[in-house]
Amino acid sequence: MPVLVEDAAAAVTPLFSADARAFVPSAIRALAPLINDPTVISFAAGVPNPDTFPAEALAAAAADALAAAPGRVLQYDVTAGYAPLRDRIAARSKAKGLAVAASDVLLTTGSQQGLDLASRVLLDPGDAVLVEVPTYVGALVTFASRRARAVGVRRDEAGIDLEHLAGTVARLRSEGTAVKALYTIPSFQNPSGLAMGKGAKDALAEACARLGLLVLEDDPYGELGFGGAGEPADVTPLAARIPSRTAYLGSFSKTLAAGLRVGWLSGPKPFVAKAELAKQASDLCSSTFGAAVIERYLAANDYDAHLSRLRGFYRGRKELLLDAMRESFPRGCAFTDPRGGLFTWVRLPAGRDAGELLPKAVERTRVAYVPGAPFVVEGDGRPFLRMTFAKEPPEKLVDGARRLGAFLSEAAA
Amino acid sequence: MPVLVEDAAAAVTPLFSADARAFVPSAIRALAPLINDPTVISFAAGVPNPDTFPAEALAAAAADALAAAPGRVLQYDVTAGYAPLRDRIAARSKAKGLAVAASDVLLTTGSQQGLDLASRVLLDPGDAVLVEVPTYVGALVTFASRRARAVGVRRDEAGIDLEHLAGTVARLRSEGTAVKALYTIPSFQNPSGLAMGKGAKDALAEACARLGLLVLEDDPYGELGFGGAGEPADVTPLAARIPSRTAYLGSFSKTLAAGLRVGWLSGPKPFVAKAELAKQASDLCSSTFGAAVIERYLAANDYDAHLSRLRGFYRGRKELLLDAMRESFPRGCAFTDPRGGLFTWVRLPAGRDAGELLPKAVERTRVAYVPGAPFVVEGDGRPFLRMTFAKEPPEKLVDGARRLGAFLSEAAA
Repeated sequence: MPVLVEDAAAAVTPLFSADARAFVPSAIRALAPLINDPTVISFAAGVPNPDTFPAEALAAAAADALAAAPGRVLQYDVTAGYAPLRDRIAARSKAKGLAVAASDVLLTTGSQQGLDLASRVLLDPGDAVLVEVPTYVGALVTFASRRARAVGVRRDEAGIDLEHLAGTVARLRSEGTAVKALYTIPSFQNPSGLAMGKGAKDALAEACARLGLLVLEDDPYGELGFGGAGEPADVTPLAARIPSRTAYLGSFSKTLAAGLRVGWLSGPKPFVAKAELAKQASDLCSSTFGAAVIERYLAANDYDAHLSRLRGFYRGRKELLLDAMRESFPRGCAFTDPRGGLFTWVRLPAGRDAGELLPKAVERTRVAYVPGAPFVVEGDGRPFLRMTFAKEPPEKLVDGARRLGAFLSEAAA
Repeated sequence: MPVLVEDAAAAVTPLFSADARAFVPSAIRALAPLINDPTVISFAAGVPNPDTFPAEALAAAAADALAAAPGRVLQYDVTAGYAPLRDRIAARSKAKGLAVAASDVLLTTGSQQGLDLASRVLLDPGDAVLVEVPTYVGALVTFASRRARAVGVRRDEAGIDLEHLAGTVARLRSEGTAVKALYTIPSFQNPSGLAMGKGAKDALAEACARLGLLVLEDDPYGELGFGGAGEPADVTPLAARIPSRTAYLGSFSKTLAAGLRVGWLSGPKPFVAKAELAKQASDLCSSTFGAAVIERYLAANDYDAHLSRLRGFYRGRKELLLDAMRESFPRGCAFTDPRGGLFTWVRLPAGRDAGELLPKAVERTRVAYVPGAPFVVEGDGRPFLRMTFAKEPPEKLVDGARRLGAFLSEAAA
C-alpha cells in the first residue's frame, strides 16, 4: 500500500475556511498549565465542585434507565431530544413563569451548545451581538467562531445601563452594522456574581423589545441564589417578560453534573425550529442516555431539596472566602458580594494588571486566579480578576485568600 | 411584571443569519410520519438494531465508571475529551494501520459532529465539497448548513470514477469555485452498501493528493464487513494512505450504542487543532460520562468478539432479505449485494419514481422504505430506494420483501 507523505500544514492550511482562519482559543484555556497545577490553591477553576454531584443517585438513575428501556436510551433520538426529559423541563419552566411546552424545548450538549446553535441561527460575519462588561468568555469564543462582533454594554450592581445600551445600538446601526441580540446572564453572572432585580429586568425587557433585539438569556446559575440582605435577586427569567424574542438557555451542569453535558434551549417556535435544524446538522441529537439519566434522577429524587442543599453549600463557601478577603485584601481592592453562583469579581487598584501579576502570585504564594481581561470587551480589564469559591475546601479557601491578600498588599506597597 | 406580547415570527425572523435562512431539513426526517408508523414493516430505518447493543455490559461499565471516579466522569473535561478513551482509540487505530496518537484524536458527539466540525474548518459559503453519488443525506444537510455546494462524483462497485473526479474538480476550479474536499464512505456505504477494494483506495488516495483535496473519510461501518466471495473489501482506511490530508471520522454508534453519541475525529495535527477550536466554541466538550462508559466497556469486554458476533447478526439478516428480494422483486429491479453495513440500494426500472410510489406502498402493503432521491446530488435519483435489513426480525424481513416485491411487480405491470 503506497503511503503519500506530505507536510501536513502545507497540505491542509490552504483549505481552511475564513471562520477557521479567524478562530481564537479561549484565553482562559490557554492559562491552563499555570492555573491547573494541582499543588496550587485554585480560585481559578470555572467548574462546579464535584462533591456536590449526587453520584450515587445518578448511578441509580443510570441503572434504572438501562434496566427499563435499554433499546430506547441507547438508540438515536429525535433531534429535539428525549421527550420525557423535555416534559419535565417544560413543567419546571412553567413553575418559573415561562410559558414553555415540551415542543418548545431543544435538548443541547450543555448550554454552550445552545449558545452555538443560537449563534448559527442569528449571526453573520460582522454582525454585532451586545454583551455585558464583563461577560462569560465561552460566549465570546462562540461569537468569534462566526466572526461576529461582541460589543460591550455596561453592567453594574443595578443591572445593564440602558442608556448605554440604546446609544450603542444606535451608533452601530448608524454605521451600517446589523445588531442582532443582547447576550446576558441576568442571575449570578459569570464572572461577576451580580444579579438583576425585578425592576432592572422589567426595564431591560422593555428596552430590548423597543430596540428590536433578540435576548440570548443564559441562566446556568439561576437556581443557585443564596438569598440574604438587600433587594432580592429576581428569579423570573427575562424570557417570561418577552417570550417572543428571548432564547433561554438552561443547564444541569452546575446543579447535577457537568460531565453529562445536558442543557436545553427554549424560545419562540420559529427560533427553536431554526435551532433544531442547526442541531440536526451539528450532531443529529445529544446523548439519549445522558438525558435519560437526568430524567430518571428527577423522577426518583427531590431535586428542589438538592438545590436547597447546593445553595447552602456554595453560600457557606462564599461567606468563608469573602470574610477572609475582607480581612486580608489591601485597601483599594474592591470585590462583589455575590448573591448566588460560583464567582466573585475583584478590582485591583488602578494601574495594576492582574494578568501580569498572575505568574508571580502562583510562584510566590501558590495561589491562582483568572485574570479579568478576557471577560472585558470594552474598557480596561487589566485591573480585574475572577475568583471562585467552588473548588477549594474551607481551610484552603481561607488560607488562599490570606496568602493572596498578603501578596496583593506587598504588590501595592 | 409586564409581559410584552409580539408575534414571534415577526420578532425573530428578521434577525436570522444567511445560513439559517438557507437551512434545509433532512428530506428523510420529513418522511418520518410515513415511515415511522410502528404497524408498518420498515426497511426505512437508518439506525442499528438496538438488540445488538450490549446493554448489560454497558450498564456494568456505567456502574464501574461512576464507582471508580465519580468526580471525574461527572465533571467537564478538556475539549479533546476523556483521555483514557482517546488512548484506546489511538491503539485501535494503530492496529488498523493509522499512525494516530491520542493527541491526534478529538472525541465528538457521534461522527456527525465530526462532519460538522470539519465543515466549519473547511467550508465557506459557495465552496465545493465533492460527494459520492449516492451519498449519506446527513452529510449533505451539514454541508448545506454552511451554504457549501455538494457536487457529485460517480461511484460504482469498483470505486469512485477517478476521471469524473478529476474532470469535475477541473471544471469547478475553472469556474472560480474553491474545491476543498472529497467526502467519502469507502466501506459499506450508506446508502449503497458498496465497499472499495485495495486498488481503488490506493488510486483514490493518489488522485486526492494530486488534486489538492482534503479527504473527509467517514467510516462508521468499517468494522461491519461480512466477508464472502469476490475481491475482499479493504479494511485499511484511506487515512493510512494519505495521513497528511485525511480527516478520519470514527464512531461507536453502529457497534456499541448510538444513544451514547460517542464518535471521534482523527487527522493531521493542524487540522485537528482547528477542529478542536471549533469544538470548544460548539460545546466545550462531549459527555465525559458517555466516553467513560465506552472506555470501561472496552476495558472489561472482548470488543473484537462482540464485533464478530455483530457481523454475523447483520450478515444473517442481509442474506434473508436479499434471498427474499431475489425471489420476489420483479425483473428490471436491480440491487446491491452489500458486503457489510446495514443497507442495500435498489434501482427500479427506468421511469419509476420511488418517492411517488412510497405512500401507495405503505398504504397497500404496510411496508416502508426510503426513496433514493435525497441521496443523489447529480443525475436522476427517482428510480432508487434504500432498504435496511437492520431493524426487522427474520420473518418480517422475508414477509416484507415479498409484499414489496408483489407491489413492485404490480406497479410494473
